Amino acid sequence: MVGATGAVGTVMLSLLDERPDIWGEIRLIASARSAGRRLRVRGEDVEVLTLAPEAFDGVDIAMFDVPDEISARWAPIAAAHGAVAVDNSGAFRMDPDVPLVVPEVNADAVADRPRGIIANPNCTTLSMIVALGALHRAFGLQSLVATSYQAASGAGQAGVDTLYAQLAAVAGDRDLGRNAGDVRKAVGADGLGPFPAPLALNVVPWAGSLKDGGWSSEETKIRNESRKILGLPGLKVSATCVRVPVVTTHAVAVHAWFARPVTADAARAVLRAAPGVAVLDDPAAGEFPTPADVVGTDPTWVGRVRQSLDDPHELALFVCGDNLRKGAALNTLQIAELLVSHDQVRR
Amino acid sequence: MVGATGAVGTVMLSLLDERPDIWGEIRLIASARSAGRRLRVRGEDVEVLTLAPEAFDGVDIAMFDVPDEISARWAPIAAAHGAVAVDNSGAFRMDPDVPLVVPEVNADAVADRPRGIIANPNCTTLSMIVALGALHRAFGLQSLVATSYQAASGAGQAGVDTLYAQLAAVAGDRDLGRNAGDVRKAVGADGLGPFPAPLALNVVPWAGSLKDGGWSSEETKIRNESRKILGLPGLKVSATCVRVPVVTTHAVAVHAWFARPVTADAARAVLRAAPGVAVLDDPAAGEFPTPADVVGTDPTWVGRVRQSLDDPHELALFVCGDNLRKGAALNTLQIAELLVSHDQVRR
Repeated sequence: MVGATGAVGTVMLSLLDERPDIWGEIRLIASARSAGRRLRVRGEDVEVLTLAPEAFDGVDIAMFDVPDEISARWAPIAAAHGAVAVDNSGAFRMDPDVPLVVPEVNADAVADRPRGIIANPNCTTLSMIVALGALHRAFGLQSLVATSYQAASGAGQAGVDTLYAQLAAVAGDRDLGRNAGDVRKAVGADGLGPFPAPLALNVVPWAGSLKDGGWSSEETKIRNESRKILGLPGLKVSATCVRVPVVTTHAVAVHAWFARPVTADAARAVLRAAPGVAVLDDPAAGEFPTPADVVGTDPTWVGRVRQSLDDPHELALFVCGDNLRKGAALNTLQIAELLVSHDQVRR
Repeated sequence: MVGATGAVGTVMLSLLDERPDIWGEIRLIASARSAGRRLRVRGEDVEVLTLAPEAFDGVDIAMFDVPDEISARWAPIAAAHGAVAVDNSGAFRMDPDVPLVVPEVNADAVADRPRGIIANPNCTTLSMIVALGALHRAFGLQSLVATSYQAASGAGQAGVDTLYAQLAAVAGDRDLGRNAGDVRKAVGADGLGPFPAPLALNVVPWAGSLKDGGWSSEETKIRNESRKILGLPGLKVSATCVRVPVVTTHAVAVHAWFARPVTADAARAVLRAAPGVAVLDDPAAGEFPTPADVVGTDPTWVGRVRQSLDDPHELALFVCGDNLRKGAALNTLQIAELLVSHDQVRR
């Protein structure tokens, strides 16, 4: 596992404790800065190795959670050493020779990996795609509007630290949030962290980098990755990505159009039967998923399922998924488990 | 002014200080509980009167910001006394004999008021409708998906108090927000206030009451009111309303389809020329509206204007509007000013 000491790596280690132990040796790899540290894996202390070609000697599956440029360089090296690289960066997701895999949606795609690399989708795509995949199989997805409520941890540990620090800076002052810029002033210019505006007592309609046409990279990722995972190259997708003051778990308001008419009852029946999906949808009883109520769990949570009042082919839903678990570590691990269970590694 | 002591009434008083003084006597009216209090209006102390029929004697314009059932009873009484009632409750908005008015969009509608009542739209509709009205006039609106990021003050002063109290309860604990239900526990069962789930470190996909098909009243209001204000009874509208931990100013991610193709440049040009709209849209420079940066101001702020990559008729935008100002007090006052300037009151 490369990137063992990051926010996602930490979740990966706890998942390795929880899930079936189908592993032989687990090797932890990180930058030179973290090498030599000892981390607890499946009850044992394991020393973190420095990222180097020989670290991949004899490795069957190399899981990467590191920045794009590190993955771009090192995943091919791991593959050249005979490992299957399962990469959670954006470096290979749209490479036509690299499958982009969500086990509940397109498990078969793991077999076709000419470069020896399998990509893990972006956390925002992952927070909704398992539910959408199930609905697509049943009703034929044609068009999608996705607007996100994204957690601070999507911006890494720096995002989490920034949110906690900003909350501490604004809490207790009951005058804040009523005049333009007062939260920005309370947070301070050097308190913005990785965000382009204050996140405490605010929402920020920006995530990632600027792409053509004013779209953010987070928004184009949702479009491109959804198309590839679902095998729908012509799927219409418009996304608006917004950061909210939540620690972990992304939420997405999904409005989707299908080839066949779809009632809320029919959609809920499909979702209840779908692996990896949990339905929580009884607003009369106050039942719907919220990030703080489902964080730390594995499923894609779905609620607020509604058929459009104007178009029987249109469905609205509200989806929550833990961006560090299913959105990153869990899906990566599921891909690795798939490889082992299908005996697709050389071991 | 009926409801002078509430959250919106307080903003109304400060707006009366700021805007042209075209008023004669201003009478403040509230429930018996608040009667006798003295409030500052245009530099003078004015005593709050008890709501009673005779309080409307000689009144030209009666502005109401009170719960639906109070408006339902008292706005007709004010009208029977010869006043034009401008009502910010939901009691009359969909009444075919009551115009629903946004001065920048359908000012002419004030003249046709068979019941002597004019309704002010819901705050969430108002946070986006001025921008949508301008785009509709230019490009012909056909269909709309609106997903909201709604502030706590939309639930009144109790919502604001609850958010501040919850922030104080969670701030400083850097373990919260990582495990399901830990925020709920920190906030406490009696700390939820008017919200069905914790709002601090969370987002809550519910506002209002339950309507047919699982829609919330806030969501059906956006649909019904947008249709009426824009004069488009067949407009397709799907909304998902979500409460976020922001004090004041609603944000809405809008995805809209038009009869004519619409580029982002053309849309921005229309919006820049539109009264009541301010465009803030240069993501490369970190420019886009956020609630905390525009709260306390009058315009409808628009940023993140993007043409769909898949459909030249589809536009995405991110809109912010102060729900207590344009979303309530300001629009009410603008309607009253329109009546005075058009000499439509008996004075």
